[in-house]
Amino acid sequence: MAEATVKKNAHPFDKSRLESLLNRRFFYAPAFEIYGGVAGLYDYGPPGSSLQANIIAEWRRHFIIEEGMLEVDTTIMTPSPVFETSGHVARFADWMVKDTKTGDVLRADHLVKGVLEGRLEGDREARGLAAIPMKEPEKKDKKKEKEKKKKGKGVELVQLTDVTRDEYEHVLAKLDDYTGPELGHLIKNNNIRNPDTDNEVTDPVQFNLMFASSIGPTGQHPGFLRPETAQGHFLNFSRLLEHNNSRIPFASACIGRSFRNEISPRAGLMRVREFTMAEIEHYVDPLDKSHPRFREVADIELGLLDRETQMGGKTDVGRISVGEAVRRGIIANETLGYFLVRIYLFLLKIGISPAKLRFRQHMSNEMAHYATDCWDAEIFNSYGWTECVGCADRAAYDLTVHSKRTGVPLVVRQQLKEVVEEERWVGVWDKKVLGKGLGREGAGVVRVLEEGGEEGLGRVKGELEAHGQTKVLVEGKEFVVTKDMLSVERKVFKQSVREYTPNVIEPSFGLGRILYALLEHSFWCREQDVDRGVLSLPPLVAPTKVLIVPLSSKEEFDPLVAEVSSKLRKAGIFSRVDDSNTSIGKRYARNDELGTPFGLTLDFASVQNRTMTLRERDTTAQLIGDIDEVISVVTELVQGTMEWADACSKLPVYDGTQAVD
Amino acid sequence: MAEATVKKNAHPFDKSRLESLLNRRFFYAPAFEIYGGVAGLYDYGPPGSSLQANIIAEWRRHFIIEEGMLEVDTTIMTPSPVFETSGHVARFADWMVKDTKTGDVLRADHLVKGVLEGRLEGDREARGLAAIPMKEPEKKDKKKEKEKKKKGKGVELVQLTDVTRDEYEHVLAKLDDYTGPELGHLIKNNNIRNPDTDNEVTDPVQFNLMFASSIGPTGQHPGFLRPETAQGHFLNFSRLLEHNNSRIPFASACIGRSFRNEISPRAGLMRVREFTMAEIEHYVDPLDKSHPRFREVADIELGLLDRETQMGGKTDVGRISVGEAVRRGIIANETLGYFLVRIYLFLLKIGISPAKLRFRQHMSNEMAHYATDCWDAEIFNSYGWTECVGCADRAAYDLTVHSKRTGVPLVVRQQLKEVVEEERWVGVWDKKVLGKGLGREGAGVVRVLEEGGEEGLGRVKGELEAHGQTKVLVEGKEFVVTKDMLSVERKVFKQSVREYTPNVIEPSFGLGRILYALLEHSFWCREQDVDRGVLSLPPLVAPTKVLIVPLSSKEEFDPLVAEVSSKLRKAGIFSRVDDSNTSIGKRYARNDELGTPFGLTLDFASVQNRTMTLRERDTTAQLIGDIDEVISVVTELVQGTMEWADACSKLPVYDGTQAVD
Repeated sequence: MAEATVKKNAHPFDKSRLESLLNRRFFYAPAFEIYGGVAGLYDYGPPGSSLQANIIAEWRRHFIIEEGMLEVDTTIMTPSPVFETSGHVARFADWMVKDTKTGDVLRADHLVKGVLEGRLEGDREARGLAAIPMKEPEKKDKKKEKEKKKKGKGVELVQLTDVTRDEYEHVLAKLDDYTGPELGHLIKNNNIRNPDTDNEVTDPVQFNLMFASSIGPTGQHPGFLRPETAQGHFLNFSRLLEHNNSRIPFASACIGRSFRNEISPRAGLMRVREFTMAEIEHYVDPLDKSHPRFREVADIELGLLDRETQMGGKTDVGRISVGEAVRRGIIANETLGYFLVRIYLFLLKIGISPAKLRFRQHMSNEMAHYATDCWDAEIFNSYGWTECVGCADRAAYDLTVHSKRTGVPLVVRQQLKEVVEEERWVGVWDKKVLGKGLGREGAGVVRVLEEGGEEGLGRVKGELEAHGQTKVLVEGKEFVVTKDMLSVERKVFKQSVREYTPNVIEPSFGLGRILYALLEHSFWCREQDVDRGVLSLPPLVAPTKVLIVPLSSKEEFDPLVAEVSSKLRKAGIFSRVDDSNTSIGKRYARNDELGTPFGLTLDFASVQNRTMTLRERDTTAQLIGDIDEVISVVTELVQGTMEWADACSKLPVYDGTQAVD
Repeated sequence: MAEATVKKNAHPFDKSRLESLLNRRFFYAPAFEIYGGVAGLYDYGPPGSSLQANIIAEWRRHFIIEEGMLEVDTTIMTPSPVFETSGHVARFADWMVKDTKTGDVLRADHLVKGVLEGRLEGDREARGLAAIPMKEPEKKDKKKEKEKKKKGKGVELVQLTDVTRDEYEHVLAKLDDYTGPELGHLIKNNNIRNPDTDNEVTDPVQFNLMFASSIGPTGQHPGFLRPETAQGHFLNFSRLLEHNNSRIPFASACIGRSFRNEISPRAGLMRVREFTMAEIEHYVDPLDKSHPRFREVADIELGLLDRETQMGGKTDVGRISVGEAVRRGIIANETLGYFLVRIYLFLLKIGISPAKLRFRQHMSNEMAHYATDCWDAEIFNSYGWTECVGCADRAAYDLTVHSKRTGVPLVVRQQLKEVVEEERWVGVWDKKVLGKGLGREGAGVVRVLEEGGEEGLGRVKGELEAHGQTKVLVEGKEFVVTKDMLSVERKVFKQSVREYTPNVIEPSFGLGRILYALLEHSFWCREQDVDRGVLSLPPLVAPTKVLIVPLSSKEEFDPLVAEVSSKLRKAGIFSRVDDSNTSIGKRYARNDELGTPFGLTLDFASVQNRTMTLRERDTTAQLIGDIDEVISVVTELVQGTMEWADACSKLPVYDGTQAVD
């Protein structure tokens, strides 16, 4: 019995059973439910909060403590200028259309995607080909599909012309590239309508995804809720660098809420308007993106779906060691590669199935314009492959733009071991002649010429020598600069300090998405009874580690229950007592649903002989032993220093003289 | 040396030194500083984040785990109807005035308070009496006072008439009672002006303190950022009750961000626009507010400043056991008393000075109208006595209003041990006659009559018997109900279930305020050198527990540093290595400022003999021993299972043959 193997895949994954479990046990639920709820907002109940807190605690250990990162806790409410500089005010937006009759709002790209994919599916079925599984998450939602079919708006079996089919496929492949007006043309030209009502939709208009508010009582200071924690790190860069004794590389880390006012969120925890994220900003020398600990991880193999493969229209994941991937230039640099492995190890440790995890490289059109490389850790779940962690090389973009806007240098000053001498062209101005000739416009002319840098000044020198003058364009006006105003000379500069803006590698975790994927990966039903769901969460993250079950609520059990609780608490193990008036079997079934890995049963033998049984969740196997011995075994099991097989060799199997399960 | 006593109060508390330390070591800093900052918004740097995380971890252990509370993690962005119901949309506001010339915005009550207190101070000085310390936090801000004096707007020595003086004192005593218009009269009649500019101010207008936003793309769903986490608990009450096997009492707990758009925040971390709070909602039977664990705490004495003392115009704190306070009715009930003690123990555990902690009862005019009793844990600091934890009995208010608004019952159903019989009047309608007589209006008539309840139906019965009919007013229209439509009869009801709305006891913690007070209480300067600041944070909450200091950055130390780090990590102790190129003394001084309680020095003897010295922060005493022995001692010191005195008896004093400090 103790060695019994568990057939976890005896029943196919049943999403509605999982959803019912999560709702019934209050892992999470729609927020403001008694007020009718609000799409994309969820509250976590006790097991969900606890699971989340355990994932966060492990994240802190795995990243912040293990890597000596500098944690920050920054502000959510952000004044507008910060996001003007970062580009979010102008660009953090989606295109939306409205149903011309109902006023329902739809995201334009999702609408196009959904409708064209539906037509392609209809085409395939009409041609007698099997429907291939689709990527778009929403399409997999059984409830919605059922509703559609009820309304008679299921897939229509219409065969398309080959030209049309090819066109649709082309559109879908490069959907991310379309501008709003282009999406509008697509919608008009292809007669795309709101599939829920069959009404026409308006032209796409841009909708910024940041929640807007106003700071202070005057209404003069617009603010936004941050859509990511990143800017809070960057603005504190100089303080962090100083805190790190001015050394680089180092990383800052922040765990906190962010907000995105999604147009019409419909994918449960996978697309929400308020979420907890954990972000790392790792600052490196742009000339040296090696990582001191890269050797430790170089041999670990990851499942990579690189850009080239995707451009070939394929989704084959290649397993390759991260060392080789960096060597072959598939992953841009060591630091990025190092973090991909660290992300991989973290996800496995908390219980994500390695078979359902891949790293997908962004296509060039997907990346922010400043990023040099970006990989998403995608986790497979019932919504398809979902981005759960992003890992981007943001180059020097953010620090540069904030520094430029504020005038505050956000740079590293590196003492050079040897003084470096450098010759440069320098413009030497005769201010008097300049002022006489050009008056107040002189300053602008100087600025433009100096902005030309080395190359520009070299060219100017040539012109001055050849023609005695050069022409300069300042804001559309032309000025003549003569050689008595300016001479260009070669000068030697000595540098003992190198000043540079570091590059930033950013691993960014959506904790809610990871948590939901983990719940799907952990869920299964007992072979003998499909109604008995189990969440096989690893002890590390399980909301409750140990359930204490007194056989009955008789008072004689109270001292034992108190003793066991207290001893577990001292060992740092979080336990709960279930002394409700139901059978022990029902109490265990409830805790299998809550993912509690171990159960301790106190019965009359416990009172007489100080023995206690220990039950393992997945196998339902039970061992028996002296109370203190069992506590010591369960402590090691929870802490991960002992496997269940070892426990079985330490404690005898419970022979069931008393029926407890 | 090891037994040296420390004179922590050798120098008077110097706020500017503390502020300089907190800023220099990046405990926290104004958010968006490089953009000029925003009043009331702060970012926590590495030591501040870590200190906060440790306080939160202890809060979780002390409250959630120890008391078996149900943790929830709820949504910040909240749709307007929720706060309409809770009363926040109508009442969560302050009165503000504007400077008529500069447009500067001031909180009306703060303005009145500041100006009148200033005049009273001037009066006392003019009468030759010593200035008494003031309560108002802002007034104690030295920087501001300096600025005032610079501008020549210091306290003016003007003697008031006795009548005026009494009037001012009367106004200040009941300032919380004034409405906005009354504050306006006060300002006009007493010629109160903006003290910064001497300009007149406008009439007070109300300003709601919630940050407003809009949910979704249509603009039709106004939302607010929550100003407290409480409503998120209440809305989930039924799910939580079910999760607790429908048993009561129980508590929910939530740690998270809340937001208040303060009019003009000026008191550092003590009055901010965004803050992390920890709230408990404990649900009890309104007929039984006893607490099962009250006996355990009944003998603990608290410093109480009760309502009666305050009404007598005094602020004397009485030390009294909580058992006696409940018995004498000073504290309303056991559950409230139990939580006051738990709050007290928590604050002491993290390092709040007991001499600077008191519990002040709210005056009746201070409490929300529905609250039955409320106590604030106030902590003394340079801003005066500041509310850091509130502990209120909110009665059944919140659950009642949300249930009424949504129609969803938020109640406890208690199986009664004995069936209770009750006789009630019941209306028996002849629907046919009613329909014939009143048509579609009949439904409204039935509703109005049944809403009249027991008393109403009794009266109707009398009228029907006396006159054969009764008149009913439905939305202003009168209808006649005859005795062939309705008869009122006495019926017996059997009840086996008692249904009630639980009352809520709410301990609510402002974590940033507690953190700041703790920093003040922990700060002192070395007797021999006022520039050497120390933060004597308890190991439990100290950001870093152990500092590892290799004598030099020579490579031969690397394996030892790695060994010690790794062993500490395995023991669960958070350490940092400081191998910067400065003297060991400077490195220790830096870590005294960071509050790191223990230091381990690795020198050449370590390499040769595997010995290591252990330094204690407050005394700077040093012990020496074998590396593994020292690790075991420091582990116990950090975990609190060993005191420094015991460590001194275990390890020999370091005799300083090598100068390391």
